[in-house]
Amino acid sequence: MPDILGHNYIGGARSGRSTVTLQSLDAASGEALPYSFLEATPEEVGAAAEAAAAAYPAYRNLPAERRAQFLDAIAAELDALGEDFVALVCRETALPAGRIQGERARTSGQMRLFAEVLRRGDFHGARIDRALPERKPLPRPDLRQCRIGLGPVAVFGASNFPLAFSAAGGDTAAALAAGCPVVFKAHGGHLATAECVADAILRAAEKTVMPAGVFNLVYGDWVGQDLVRHPAIQAVGFTGSLRGGRALCDLAAARPQPIPVFAEMSSINPVILLPQALETRGENIANELTASVTLGCGQFCTNPGLVLGVRSPAFGRFLQALTRLMGEQPAQTMLNAGTLRHYAEGVARLAEHPGVTRLAGRPQQGGQAEPQLFQAQASLLLEGDPLLQEEVFGPTTIVVELADEAELQRALAILHGQLTATLIAEPEDLRGCAGLVAQLEQKAGRLLVNGYPTGVEVCDAMVHGGPYPATSDPRGSSVGTLAIERFLRPVCYQNMPDALLPDALKNANPLGIARLVDGRSTREALA
Amino acid sequence: MPDILGHNYIGGARSGRSTVTLQSLDAASGEALPYSFLEATPEEVGAAAEAAAAAYPAYRNLPAERRAQFLDAIAAELDALGEDFVALVCRETALPAGRIQGERARTSGQMRLFAEVLRRGDFHGARIDRALPERKPLPRPDLRQCRIGLGPVAVFGASNFPLAFSAAGGDTAAALAAGCPVVFKAHGGHLATAECVADAILRAAEKTVMPAGVFNLVYGDWVGQDLVRHPAIQAVGFTGSLRGGRALCDLAAARPQPIPVFAEMSSINPVILLPQALETRGENIANELTASVTLGCGQFCTNPGLVLGVRSPAFGRFLQALTRLMGEQPAQTMLNAGTLRHYAEGVARLAEHPGVTRLAGRPQQGGQAEPQLFQAQASLLLEGDPLLQEEVFGPTTIVVELADEAELQRALAILHGQLTATLIAEPEDLRGCAGLVAQLEQKAGRLLVNGYPTGVEVCDAMVHGGPYPATSDPRGSSVGTLAIERFLRPVCYQNMPDALLPDALKNANPLGIARLVDGRSTREALA
Repeated sequence: MPDILGHNYIGGARSGRSTVTLQSLDAASGEALPYSFLEATPEEVGAAAEAAAAAYPAYRNLPAERRAQFLDAIAAELDALGEDFVALVCRETALPAGRIQGERARTSGQMRLFAEVLRRGDFHGARIDRALPERKPLPRPDLRQCRIGLGPVAVFGASNFPLAFSAAGGDTAAALAAGCPVVFKAHGGHLATAECVADAILRAAEKTVMPAGVFNLVYGDWVGQDLVRHPAIQAVGFTGSLRGGRALCDLAAARPQPIPVFAEMSSINPVILLPQALETRGENIANELTASVTLGCGQFCTNPGLVLGVRSPAFGRFLQALTRLMGEQPAQTMLNAGTLRHYAEGVARLAEHPGVTRLAGRPQQGGQAEPQLFQAQASLLLEGDPLLQEEVFGPTTIVVELADEAELQRALAILHGQLTATLIAEPEDLRGCAGLVAQLEQKAGRLLVNGYPTGVEVCDAMVHGGPYPATSDPRGSSVGTLAIERFLRPVCYQNMPDALLPDALKNANPLGIARLVDGRSTREALA
Repeated sequence: MPDILGHNYIGGARSGRSTVTLQSLDAASGEALPYSFLEATPEEVGAAAEAAAAAYPAYRNLPAERRAQFLDAIAAELDALGEDFVALVCRETALPAGRIQGERARTSGQMRLFAEVLRRGDFHGARIDRALPERKPLPRPDLRQCRIGLGPVAVFGASNFPLAFSAAGGDTAAALAAGCPVVFKAHGGHLATAECVADAILRAAEKTVMPAGVFNLVYGDWVGQDLVRHPAIQAVGFTGSLRGGRALCDLAAARPQPIPVFAEMSSINPVILLPQALETRGENIANELTASVTLGCGQFCTNPGLVLGVRSPAFGRFLQALTRLMGEQPAQTMLNAGTLRHYAEGVARLAEHPGVTRLAGRPQQGGQAEPQLFQAQASLLLEGDPLLQEEVFGPTTIVVELADEAELQRALAILHGQLTATLIAEPEDLRGCAGLVAQLEQKAGRLLVNGYPTGVEVCDAMVHGGPYPATSDPRGSSVGTLAIERFLRPVCYQNMPDALLPDALKNANPLGIARLVDGRSTREALA
């Protein structure tokens, strides 16, 4: 059984000054696990932010290679966590061991990918415009630009990824890579997991001699507001509900010094079924879609919550198959009681709406989530009914049958911003499809053809982002290497002597990185 | 005399529905010029935003080369404006003809530089992770990423750059390059100038067959709020006061869909004089600094408003020289009556403060700005007196003498975010200077050594940005090619057939651009 103290992590030490405790629970049974946690006091939240601020000057100024070693060491510590750790995560989240093992590999893989980014060096954004002393009417000075970390970042863990979007998750990895110390607010649904992961990070920090305060962790349901308001915090990464994310955005915008927030919030991930695909393989699509909707009890930000198609006999057959298949899906245990309660509320709102019909699934009851399939009248979508724009987090989806392609395009135009949009299509469907793709580009961060959105690859080309309310800033991504850009800012050096320039900008190019020199990308040293 | 209609520009046509008029004024005499302008009604503001939104799908989807041709055409139209145009700008701003001619060249040069960026293609941010169908446990799909324009951008013109930060200024150039139609709010200080420039942009749009609505312009002192609130607007570029910029940020953050704002606002641009430099060339520094403080009547965002040095006999001699030189500077005409009033208020606040002494300059009176030099007690800075953090826009600066280097470092730590920070130093001053440079990196967007911040080069490596309140988002720049990034967002394509991919991501690499393919930068086509 892991050794869990339940105190906050502040500046490399443990701190437990409060008397308010939080309890780790078994997600399946609701029973209390023998781990309790002390909520951070306002003073402790402040101390955590200040510890991060104290670490920032030294940490951000470390050679990128040193930060890469730190990330690699975190990855190694995560991989070394034993079976008892996996069992603990499973108890706290009701997720199966295979999923947790996979997620752990994803989490350590993410750390290693950011280490690679640090070594590759494009994150520096190095640009050099050399002096033109003879230029008329005025000479040009020597100007060089590269990027540095913004400062301490507050990271809010997600309920549904106890590892990949939590203490050592994507936001933490991106912030640490960027040179930003982190204050992590643990999610109440996996407190003991967070402690084990924080221990792993701190072991890695010690082994690679990182400044104390490079990673801090606070417990508590209400500590987030104090954290975002603290003047030392310079950016926020959040994954969760629209309500929670928007509240943090509003707090951040109202600070004396507003700070950037990247909140990944709410998406219904439309899947558009094109006619020939339905004709050719409607039954298969029904099978695949059912699997995507119910995967992991539907607890993914990219869960397909809206299925659109144009009326046809093939669409009718597809819908029959989907109804049958969704009706056969077993109930599943959700992440925690709150998630189940929200799911029950969400499906109740759908079931009670006069324009919505339940096609499959048992009415929600008991301790597990019942997979459900709804059909909504097209008019609801076309008239912008907010019910069809709201994410219902869990194994449910809504089908809307449109009269024709024009109606489909009108429906898409009304949709809010999305993380993903998917086309299921045969080659002949795709021929006249450029307009549809262009429309979806304006709505979503990721467009898929003949895939399902629930897998989010961690790589250079991924975008896990999109227009509001999918995220609070469509310019960012919280998955993949682009995520580092949220936490970097450019600095320009004018006529700075070589010795005082960052390595990325020195004449000799000691890092051997690609740089934009007088408008041309090159790895050459400068004379 | 230019032909000025005074109506708003909406969707390529002119619209003048209001009865509220604004008057163009001669900046030196205050007399009314024979040009009046109709303030946009709320409906006209909405129509302008909607015209931009209607242009967006076609405009953002144009090949980058087509947008480059548009920017080149704008540059040519600007360069072709006659001497009567230059004379008009001079009358509206009281800036000398040489300055306006230089600024016009800067403005058209800026357009051409963004055309170059479009042709160079790095703005696409093209990234490709090829499919790994054999990967275990799961295959990797084909994933590709590039960037598209955010949508219609509202641009607010600055008072002090009637060309370079106005209708065809840096924000407009960056937005148009990114594929974002623009709604420009003309500054009340140069309304007729704005109309001539808008005409030039529209001629270029017509010649290069751009969609109607790619550029719109509204007049009016109070139209900005409606513009930022309009749901079609997707980003804001602003240059102006802290109060005005912050108000727009707050409005944008409070929208049902919050949008990004890049507001360049307030900076006092500290200049730090190091001991050996003072010893070796204190008199020269006093000369150069006087020139920088009074250049263009001090009406630059990068005007050096705070001069810091450690007490020494050399510092004393420098201060004597600076006092003498600043006392010799003639009064200058400001951009408009409002600017002069604000300047008078700013210097009055300084003059009245018991911790501040006026060293040189006549008390402010009359119709021109009197250059002034103040000295503030170090304690004011060290105790964080807000007076020393506030920009006084005009030909004035404040000197603070610190007791020693430790006090200097404490003073710097207290400073708010800045556009620039400058070191005046001899080689031996710079030897132990890495800590000072690191401290300044955390405060400013641009660090200068032995230069003066009032020249802002337009190039790849420039950063005209910095931590709040210098700007509202330290991750951006409003000068130089980096400025385009504020208005782009990434889109990811998963298993998208080649024919439906943007050119930047097609296998054959028809644009011939550098792309990050499987983690390696290459211009090669893919098999």
